[in-house]
Order: sequence, then structure tokens, then C-alpha cells
Amino acid sequence: MTTIQDVARHAHVGVATVSRVLNGNGYVKEETRKKIEAAIADLDYTPNEMARNLYFRKSHIVAVTVPDVSHPFFAEFVSTVEAALCEKGYQTMICNTYYESNFEEKYLEMLKRQRVDGIIFGSHTLDTSGYADLKKPIVALDRDLGGNIPCVASNHREGGRLAAEELIRAGCKKVVQFEGSVGKFQVSTPSNMRHEVFREVMESHGVTCYSYDSRWNNFRNAYFRSLVREALDQHPDIDGAFGTDMLMMEMLREARERGKRVPDELKLVAYDGTYPLQFCYPGITCVEQPIQELAREAVRLVIEMIDGNLTGVENVELPVSLRRRESTACEGNVRS
Amino acid sequence: MTTIQDVARHAHVGVATVSRVLNGNGYVKEETRKKIEAAIADLDYTPNEMARNLYFRKSHIVAVTVPDVSHPFFAEFVSTVEAALCEKGYQTMICNTYYESNFEEKYLEMLKRQRVDGIIFGSHTLDTSGYADLKKPIVALDRDLGGNIPCVASNHREGGRLAAEELIRAGCKKVVQFEGSVGKFQVSTPSNMRHEVFREVMESHGVTCYSYDSRWNNFRNAYFRSLVREALDQHPDIDGAFGTDMLMMEMLREARERGKRVPDELKLVAYDGTYPLQFCYPGITCVEQPIQELAREAVRLVIEMIDGNLTGVENVELPVSLRRRESTACEGNVRS
Repeated sequence: MTTIQDVARHAHVGVATVSRVLNGNGYVKEETRKKIEAAIADLDYTPNEMARNLYFRKSHIVAVTVPDVSHPFFAEFVSTVEAALCEKGYQTMICNTYYESNFEEKYLEMLKRQRVDGIIFGSHTLDTSGYADLKKPIVALDRDLGGNIPCVASNHREGGRLAAEELIRAGCKKVVQFEGSVGKFQVSTPSNMRHEVFREVMESHGVTCYSYDSRWNNFRNAYFRSLVREALDQHPDIDGAFGTDMLMMEMLREARERGKRVPDELKLVAYDGTYPLQFCYPGITCVEQPIQELAREAVRLVIEMIDGNLTGVENVELPVSLRRRESTACEGNVRS
Repeated sequence: MTTIQDVARHAHVGVATVSRVLNGNGYVKEETRKKIEAAIADLDYTPNEMARNLYFRKSHIVAVTVPDVSHPFFAEFVSTVEAALCEKGYQTMICNTYYESNFEEKYLEMLKRQRVDGIIFGSHTLDTSGYADLKKPIVALDRDLGGNIPCVASNHREGGRLAAEELIRAGCKKVVQFEGSVGKFQVSTPSNMRHEVFREVMESHGVTCYSYDSRWNNFRNAYFRSLVREALDQHPDIDGAFGTDMLMMEMLREARERGKRVPDELKLVAYDGTYPLQFCYPGITCVEQPIQELAREAVRLVIEMIDGNLTGVENVELPVSLRRRESTACEGNVRS
């Protein structure tokens, strides 16, 4: 196999000069460049990517971990992360953590071994103590990992307020919300703030609010279905519900089977705003997270950290918005 | 930084012996192993992953390309590929090709440069001539790339037959189907066979069948919407439709807006069987592809090729099944 040394010998130059030409950095005389390019062509040389990475101590790979790539929120997040990294010349490695914490430890280890240049943690099962002191290119989605790690999140407080006010506007008097449980991992995430605000707004308006915990990071349909059934069994007279897209889609389906009409007898507001919502009938009102923008901000931050251009921790909070559909329609309310 | 040479010197052994211990292959005397492990501990040595990869000429990364990770079919495919590769000790690199052919060329180049050990091509925009002569670990989803490259696909002929027979059983006399166009890339894919069979079965039963081309690899919602509108404008009297999940969900929504009742006036059969279908109302009957099994077979084949255990080209064809829902309900037909 032809090596970079062979090319250097053939062109009568040093290896460092060949390397500069191959990587397009540093000054090389035009005449020398031509000699080297001729040598590369003569010898049919293909640079070994791994050798080059070893030399530069960069893998040009960023890892992104999510609980499950097939979940529509994370599918869109990962897809946008990949496109944004690709634009910057990085490849994307993915990992489904499936609610297991040891995967995240494995990725921290890969970062240490220079197998990846950075990590975007979109899953949060690991005890935060593993992260706090790392001075590495790590960005967290929706979680305060402490120390030097930037967090990218939506404005969940505003999201909770928008959802609560929409159900109140639609005339609800007794509502249920499904929270993400902190569960066994004791996860602290900005996304739980929406439920606190939701409850506060409801209470301040004299609306009864029941809260259910959904297990953290558990996105299985059957589980969601059993949870909405439990809520409807225990509180058959609720007239409003708030939870993630998948939960509200299951709630709509379950309500239909029980003959409870949406929106007449039950109003729904979903949180996330992934695309399957628009195919439901009636359409489900939602608080939309800016998923693609969250992804692009996470990539911007991780690249700035890799390049050493980030000074200080920069937490990013992006605005959410209400998209009104039929599930919160009420008298005197124009459907959108 | 501590190197493998430092460890070897410290333990008074050769570098190759240290390497055998680190990688757990080849015989090393128990006493020697203990000495080396002590040296690793003494020196706080972390093996450099890239150096090790360079030595073994393996990256332990497999790339998977799909048109768009956020599309539900590909999201589930990629998620399952990742889990299966992870079990085998491989990391997964992903790439959205977004209907651009140059991405695939880039990945072939990465394979040549040993940046990845294998590729699963779930997107197909590149002229096949680039692949045919490659003796590399490449597996194709749903496409005959010729030469030495195994293809994993569903039994699309059977899928087309099941869809046609279901619409005939439900009493349809005039139907429309949406085909994947070969378009500018002249793509030959087993998945187009379903449409040929669908047309044949319809013709043999005296059912009128209109066909529309949907642009290859174009999964944008707005485009699908315009396509179903065009079909309903040109043939307002159709009583049945067949196409991918997203197209049939758009068809259901468009029919509702036009006051055309599903299933009474229009029956639908979707192709793929991704999860959003189940939340539609009425539920949409579908031909289900075994997405997870397709992913696991693709991984099995690429690993066998990487390990040099695959003798000859092995094409895999997996069975599909019909899942009946309300969109094909008719008189005398029990709803499932």
C-alpha cells in the first residue's frame, strides 16, 4: 500500500508538506503543490483516514444519544443534527440509550479515547456526577448537567402556561396532566417545569388539576395507553388533558372508544408538536417545541466547543408556541 | 501522554504482547498478563482508540444511509439497525441523503479509506455502476445493486397482491395507486413490483386502475398533499386508493375535507404499516412491512461480510402481512 512517505519521497519533499497539501492548511508553494499532486496521481495514493485522524487527534465524528431514534421527537432531532453536522464536515454517530444508563458511560469513554470529538446528550439517565468536571465538548438537550456543560432547551415554563391558559379559555373545570417522572434516576430537567407552571395556573383559576407520573424515558405505546385508561377510570368526569403528543393521541383514541366526545366533553392540549398530530381527527391542539432549532443550536454549541471558541457556559432557551386545532374548540371559538 | 510503548517498557515485554492483552486475542501467559495489567494501572494508560483502529485496520463503525431519518419508516429502520449493530460491538454512523446522490459517493469513499467497516444503503440515488465491482461489505435495502451486493427487501409482489385483493373484496370498482417513480435516477427497486402486481390483479378483475407517479425519495408532506388532490380532482369518482402510509393519511384528510366518506365512499389501503396509521380515524388498513426484521437482516449480512463469513450473494426476501382496519370495512365485513 502506498503511504504518505512514498508520496513525499516521490515528490522530493517532506511528509509535513504533503500533509499540508492533503489537508489544505498551511502555505505550500504552487510549484511544490503541483509536484505533490502529480506524485499522488502517479502512485494512486489514497490517504488513510485513520492515520490522518491519529495525526490530527480528531475523528470528525460527533455522537448523539437519544432514548429511541424511532420516537418522532427524537427522529426529527437526530435528522436535523445530522444535517447540521454534515454541513460542518462532521459525521454523526447515533446511540439509542433505551433508558439504560450504561450507554452514556460508554460514550463518555469514547470521548476520552478520542473516538468522537464531541457528544450531544439527548438522553438523560446517567447520574450527573459523571459529567460535572469534564472539560470536553458535551452539550445536553433539556437537562442541566452542571459544571461546564451547556444546556439547550425550550422555554418549558412558557409552554406550561400556554397549555393551561388554552384549556381554561376552552372552559375546562377539571383537568389531568401527565408529568415526566423523575423516577429512579432523579433526573432534573427543565422540561418538568411546564407541569409546575401548569398546576399553578390551574390552581390560580380554581380549576381542579390531577397529575399522573409517566415513567421517565418510557415511550412505549402500550404503556401510554394503560396510563390514559387509568386516568379516565379514576376521573371519568375530567374535561381537559395535557401531556406529550403520544399520550394525547392515545387519550383521543381511548376517549373515542368510551364515547367521550373530543372536544365537546374533553379538551386536549399536546406537548411537543410532532407531525403525527396533524393526522388525528379531530386535530389536536399543541404547544410546539422548535425541534429543528434545538438541534441546530446543539450542533452550533458542540462545534464551538470542539474548536475551542466557546468561552463560558452558554445555556440556550428557545421559545415555544401554541398551535390551535379542533381539540380545544369551544362555543364562540373559531376553528383554525 | 502514556503510549503502548511506555506500557511495554514498564512491563518488560513487547508491544505486540501488550496489544494482545488490550484486545483480548491471542495467547498471553497469565503471569505476563498480570505484569502488563499492573503496568497499565501504574501508568494510568488509556489506549488510544484511533491508534488501535489503525493497527487492526478496523473502525468498528458501520454507516447507514437513508433518505431522511425523520421519516417514520426509516426512523424505525435506523433505530433497529443501531440496536443490532450495538449488540455486535459496532457503532452506527448515519447519513440523510436527502435525495442527493453525492452523499452516497462520499460514503463509498469513506469505506475505501477505512473510516467505516461497512455500509447499509437504505437510500438509492446513485447510479448503480459505482457499486457493482466493489468487493466491500455493502448491503442494500430494497434495491438490486448488482454484482456482489446482497439485497434485503420485503416480498413486495405479495404486498401488491394483498392490497389489490383487499380493495376488490371491499367492492371497489375504480381505484388509484401511487407508484414510486424511477425518475431521473432510473432506480430499479423490488418495491416497484407491488404496483405492477396491483395493476395486474385489478385488470384481471375488471377494476379500473389509475396510476400516479410520486417522485422517488420525496417524502415531504406538502408534496403528498398536492398529489392526492390532483388524483381526487382528476378522478372524483374513485372508490379505492393504494399508496404509502403518508400518502394514505393525506388522502384520508383530503377526503374528509371534500366530504367524501371513508370507508363508505372511498376505501384505503396503505403500504408500510408505520405507527402513525393507528391513530388515524377511521383506522387505515395496511400492508405491513417487517421493518425491524429488515433492519436485523441487513445488519446480519453486513457483519458476515465484514467478518469474511459470507460466501456468495445472499438476497433476503421477507414476508408482508395485511392488517385490516376500518378504512376497508364494508357490509358483511366484521371490523377488527
